[in-house]
Amino acid sequence: MSELAPQTRSRVLSALRGQRIETASWAYGNSGTRFKVFAQQGVPRDPYEKIADAATVHRFTGVAPSVALHIPWDKVADYAQLARAAADAGIQLGTINANVFQDNDFMLGSVTNPDPGVRRKAIGHLLECVDVMDQTGSRDLKLWFSDGTNYPGQDDVRTRQDRLAEALRETYDRLAGDQRMLLEYKLFEPAFYMTDVPDWGTAYLHCTQLGDRAQVVIDTGHHAPGTNIEFIVAMLLRAGRLGGFDFNSRFYADDDLMVGAADPFQLFRIMHEIVLAGALDANAGIAFMLDQCHNIEPKIPAVIRSVMNVQEATAKALLVDHDALRAAQNNGDVLEANAAMMDAYQTDVRPLLRELREEMGLDPDPIAAYKRSGYFEQIRAERAQGQAAGWGA
Amino acid sequence: MSELAPQTRSRVLSALRGQRIETASWAYGNSGTRFKVFAQQGVPRDPYEKIADAATVHRFTGVAPSVALHIPWDKVADYAQLARAAADAGIQLGTINANVFQDNDFMLGSVTNPDPGVRRKAIGHLLECVDVMDQTGSRDLKLWFSDGTNYPGQDDVRTRQDRLAEALRETYDRLAGDQRMLLEYKLFEPAFYMTDVPDWGTAYLHCTQLGDRAQVVIDTGHHAPGTNIEFIVAMLLRAGRLGGFDFNSRFYADDDLMVGAADPFQLFRIMHEIVLAGALDANAGIAFMLDQCHNIEPKIPAVIRSVMNVQEATAKALLVDHDALRAAQNNGDVLEANAAMMDAYQTDVRPLLRELREEMGLDPDPIAAYKRSGYFEQIRAERAQGQAAGWGA
Amino acid sequence: MSELAPQTRSRVLSALRGQRIETASWAYGNSGTRFKVFAQQGVPRDPYEKIADAATVHRFTGVAPSVALHIPWDKVADYAQLARAAADAGIQLGTINANVFQDNDFMLGSVTNPDPGVRRKAIGHLLECVDVMDQTGSRDLKLWFSDGTNYPGQDDVRTRQDRLAEALRETYDRLAGDQRMLLEYKLFEPAFYMTDVPDWGTAYLHCTQLGDRAQVVIDTGHHAPGTNIEFIVAMLLRAGRLGGFDFNSRFYADDDLMVGAADPFQLFRIMHEIVLAGALDANAGIAFMLDQCHNIEPKIPAVIRSVMNVQEATAKALLVDHDALRAAQNNGDVLEANAAMMDAYQTDVRPLLRELREEMGLDPDPIAAYKRSGYFEQIRAERAQGQAAGWGA
Amino acid sequence: MSELAPQTRSRVLSALRGQRIETASWAYGNSGTRFKVFAQQGVPRDPYEKIADAATVHRFTGVAPSVALHIPWDKVADYAQLARAAADAGIQLGTINANVFQDNDFMLGSVTNPDPGVRRKAIGHLLECVDVMDQTGSRDLKLWFSDGTNYPGQDDVRTRQDRLAEALRETYDRLAGDQRMLLEYKLFEPAFYMTDVPDWGTAYLHCTQLGDRAQVVIDTGHHAPGTNIEFIVAMLLRAGRLGGFDFNSRFYADDDLMVGAADPFQLFRIMHEIVLAGALDANAGIAFMLDQCHNIEPKIPAVIRSVMNVQEATAKALLVDHDALRAAQNNGDVLEANAAMMDAYQTDVRPLLRELREEMGLDPDPIAAYKRSGYFEQIRAERAQGQAAGWGA
Repeated sequence: MSELAPQTRSRVLSALRGQRIETASWAYGNSGTRFKVFAQQGVPRDPYEKIADAATVHRFTGVAPSVALHIPWDKVADYAQLARAAADAGIQLGTINANVFQDNDFMLGSVTNPDPGVRRKAIGHLLECVDVMDQTGSRDLKLWFSDGTNYPGQDDVRTRQDRLAEALRETYDRLAGDQRMLLEYKLFEPAFYMTDVPDWGTAYLHCTQLGDRAQVVIDTGHHAPGTNIEFIVAMLLRAGRLGGFDFNSRFYADDDLMVGAADPFQLFRIMHEIVLAGALDANAGIAFMLDQCHNIEPKIPAVIRSVMNVQEATAKALLVDHDALRAAQNNGDVLEANAAMMDAYQTDVRPLLRELREEMGLDPDPIAAYKRSGYFEQIRAERAQGQAAGWGA
Repeated sequence: MSELAPQTRSRVLSALRGQRIETASWAYGNSGTRFKVFAQQGVPRDPYEKIADAATVHRFTGVAPSVALHIPWDKVADYAQLARAAADAGIQLGTINANVFQDNDFMLGSVTNPDPGVRRKAIGHLLECVDVMDQTGSRDLKLWFSDGTNYPGQDDVRTRQDRLAEALRETYDRLAGDQRMLLEYKLFEPAFYMTDVPDWGTAYLHCTQLGDRAQVVIDTGHHAPGTNIEFIVAMLLRAGRLGGFDFNSRFYADDDLMVGAADPFQLFRIMHEIVLAGALDANAGIAFMLDQCHNIEPKIPAVIRSVMNVQEATAKALLVDHDALRAAQNNGDVLEANAAMMDAYQTDVRPLLRELREEMGLDPDPIAAYKRSGYFEQIRAERAQGQAAGWGA
Repeated sequence: MSELAPQTRSRVLSALRGQRIETASWAYGNSGTRFKVFAQQGVPRDPYEKIADAATVHRFTGVAPSVALHIPWDKVADYAQLARAAADAGIQLGTINANVFQDNDFMLGSVTNPDPGVRRKAIGHLLECVDVMDQTGSRDLKLWFSDGTNYPGQDDVRTRQDRLAEALRETYDRLAGDQRMLLEYKLFEPAFYMTDVPDWGTAYLHCTQLGDRAQVVIDTGHHAPGTNIEFIVAMLLRAGRLGGFDFNSRFYADDDLMVGAADPFQLFRIMHEIVLAGALDANAGIAFMLDQCHNIEPKIPAVIRSVMNVQEATAKALLVDHDALRAAQNNGDVLEANAAMMDAYQTDVRPLLRELREEMGLDPDPIAAYKRSGYFEQIRAERAQGQAAGWGA
Repeated sequence: MSELAPQTRSRVLSALRGQRIETASWAYGNSGTRFKVFAQQGVPRDPYEKIADAATVHRFTGVAPSVALHIPWDKVADYAQLARAAADAGIQLGTINANVFQDNDFMLGSVTNPDPGVRRKAIGHLLECVDVMDQTGSRDLKLWFSDGTNYPGQDDVRTRQDRLAEALRETYDRLAGDQRMLLEYKLFEPAFYMTDVPDWGTAYLHCTQLGDRAQVVIDTGHHAPGTNIEFIVAMLLRAGRLGGFDFNSRFYADDDLMVGAADPFQLFRIMHEIVLAGALDANAGIAFMLDQCHNIEPKIPAVIRSVMNVQEATAKALLVDHDALRAAQNNGDVLEANAAMMDAYQTDVRPLLRELREEMGLDPDPIAAYKRSGYFEQIRAERAQGQAAGWGA
């Protein structure tokens, strides 16, 4: 990286130093597929232990200072106490994720269920999550609805949209101050014929009808094959409706692999749109979150690796020479414009990130440092007994 | 069909009698893939001969009383004369389709091109198409933009959206009276990395910013694998933004096969949403158009078959017992709700359609009647010389 | 159906009377997605109760006289006793399905695991399944391997194929008499980067190296988007390597919906290839099995409906006029050849199947008869206590 | 790259020096989509000028010493003279590509056509291509069949396979000495319902029935969404049936973009399998070919860039630490095994390739050198008149 102009280096390092990536409490617990959940060792047994793991990731990476919660997986009696525990560990509680897909009543839907009583119960949970936000100080309520149908005719598409709109409205109106609603979309799973919020168009439509603090969240694994995700990023940025990301990677469906593992070039292109729009900065209000399942790999180093992968993609995106890019675009020079992207992408940014970490007082190699730290040996011993956390499906 | 209650039969026949399906002038000309255009016999050589073929389709089906034009493929000196020729043949001129993808200047885009001069030229063509509408009396201007990029970085996504918005605004403002703009989306082809209007969300966003007479058109072959098209139909109906369909069918990409040939059940589900919403009636303003390429099959009978396929899907959709369906949906009875759909779908509606045709004074078997008519032998002889019409790519 | 020539009617009815569809023991138990298993009422608690449910399906359909077992989900102390219980209930035990995906040791693979001890354990289970077959009198051992990797580099593709080949060889050599090995392939899930047997080519390659009694089984939900499944059916039939089907349907991935629910036209095309090749007859050795998950719909009627869906597709396939089809094909008449298919497909075969059932002494409407039978009310009461069967994941 | 151990550097440089990438004559001509072929400047007008362009690519890259021909696009009276012209320009004639998709007789298929006369004509062309090989000294005959059907029922799948097998047999038997047949597969396009050789399984099956010199060729753009191409590479290598590659890249279908442009990580994984199997060396008999369409970008620099992209992916693959990879794999260390891959992939190999070129007496920056050379200005002037070469569709 010795060729980097000092000004560029300084700009890139500064941007990387300000980057914030939120990890997810459930990534530290056990997860799996419908075929099997393979239990791992040292898995946290309660939200406090998840916070300890998230704090460990932040300790070695320096850019993961908050952890998202999932209610009721992370239900505790006293959220203020949980927030203090997080602060003591050096991190914050982040986005609150509602869960309206695991109650037996939600078999045929939650907020879109034909039964008004079930809908009321689901909305009740959403409102309860805002109560939690009030206690944790979280800014964002993230809503993912598994609602949908498995068979043609099972329920009425438009009626379900009406029910959805009502539930979103009631929840949105409950938000106060700077609280935001992040609406997530997903093509399929667990619904296999029709999903009530399957694409960005649907999420965008509802958000525009709710108000400015309703924003779309993009889960990078939730699209049909061939979907150009960075296009959606750009569209939502242009419309002022991009609330954040759930990062992960996929080869097939919602595989929930480590972000950057399946298509690092795509991740780079996504971060390029973010950088182009000046949306990397925390003030831009984009939440960069991980939403992954480490089914077969050890969880904490997988999260660390994921944070590093986002950093590397960001660093490459920051290296794109925008002047050269625009000039080639305006000249209609297809190859040079593409080359401007590829030059940045082909750069090995790992030395730069090692420097960044050293400047931040961190070990330049977070994975190695974590392994040397003895943390895993400690939690393996401490958590040998009891019930490991999981999705509780 | 002897079991149909008289009231049902009457309702269904009445709806089918009122159905209108618009055929496309270019479906009568030669078409092919990038590998080869296989020329057929008897292909029209000018717009007048295309109109004759379209009128022939209407003569045997009774529900295809208009033909869409494509400018400049159907450019003539006097559109009023062309309209009179159509009227003389028993049909009308329908939707005007703009073409901003075949001029050499449009290699890197038309209305989204980095070059302002090229954009001006493209907008000029769009405005010219409205001039044509004024002369033909067409209600709808259909816009499909092949604009996009082949390589990451080739051009800027958001800037291109700004250019697109400007062009749409200028064109929309040129519309007068009841004239409408139908904006089509397509996932890919001919652009292979990013398409400027790739999905319904993008088309919807632009339409809402333009005004009520900007509507989305759904081409059934323009989606990513796994996309639930009837969901989009329902969403746009609910939002008051469904302008029409370009019907065709596909197994893979934009195969442009005869509608109903690849997935007749999907076509039924689409028509079910239309019927459910009361949008089959011509007053609802939904344009039901065919947009197909008959690369290897004879063109006129292929169009007749396509019209019949839409009729059959519609008839089945009209047979769905909505009361039974709603009751099962509200009871959460997944199997009975699905069965209500499947009962209608499994019904053989061909006898009913034969009756309809007889009531309309038509031959109950349009394909056989066409074959007996000698029309093909006539055009094969008459059109043996000269240059057959095609896409002119 | 009054138009059917007596000879045709007789041929079709005879073929339908001889049809055999095997249901799966696990379809009667609880199932779900990774997000949630919604428990249902009346679910069997042991293999004996599953057999009772399977026998019930046969009682009302007449064409489902066997049930497949899954080891160890259906592990019992005495398989001969289980076989007698089945016989007493009027059915037989069918295919034995091995399960090498739920032991904790199999996290990184079973027969392809890098650890020789784990591979030995997995092979041991496969051999144990042949022991079970000896006791149940089952003809077929069905092997589906969830083996694969989630990340590039995780393990070596070719080495894993060597291990797979060894395990298959040892198992194949253990088979005796008419016992067969059915090798299933699946694109993805639960492995998310590379699956060791992802496609028919891989399964075919291994089968040809094993011997004539190694055959490929096609699960209709296990393909990449856009795969032409009936082509694979035809290829394997031509090569003498089609062992059977796992029927289900899907809109997206391995959705495991009721067969015929998502794309009934595809199911018809598959059965058309079977009929064309004379492979419907039991002597042809093709096992027609259901492999589905009834996550949200009641299980027994869902299985009955699935059996009926296969019957309907088969009846339609039997109605294709092969002479007309071949004539049109040989004349290069694309539309008439397609019409020969569509004419059969558009026929309502439900009256014919009602006749068939009446001739077989069954109620013409199996779903209604099941509902009237009181069977569900009985099992709901009887099975209210205890642990419902499931996948045990 | 200063950290590379001298032994590693030497090994990698040596392997890269021996790499051979064949460019395609048709990549230098005009190409497009079915919508439009945008003509470019300086495009060759005959095979001799294509050879000049191919030689130019080799002059600047040093690793593209042969050019594939396409018959009849490259039909000349005297192939020996063409070969001498190539030799004079510093390159060789490579693979002969047959074309049985553009004759009017092939509308319904070539070697699989229902008409025996058409089949004879198609086979005649294949044999003629072997005649050409005898004259050019080409080793490989590459066969891609566009054969297939657009509609269910259009023709019989198994009968077409029989016809295909016959044609392949007759052609294979005509090969002499070291001549090989490379059989290519493609999922779809231009056939839209069923393609006669759609996947590697079909190509493999036919090759094994023909003999050892029948080999499968993988076109990287010819797969269903989600297909793991490097798995197929490994499978065919293990079976001794990988004949070569048609490199290009795609986001959606057969986009024919520059190799490495859409998913450079996938290209790296493919080359990793090649390197792992020791198949990079020319003696291994794998043909590494480009098959691309430069529809909107200038053709010669696009080919140069493509060659460089293959080199970069190869260099990264050569840097994978196989010992570390195997150790991690055998330890079941998912993250370290993946890291071994990613470490190589994240390395910036451009400095190493610049060194390679300097050692080979080339300019380290082939694109810049080409631009400075004045070659384009020369051909633009020389070729301003006359008919530019294209696909002639």
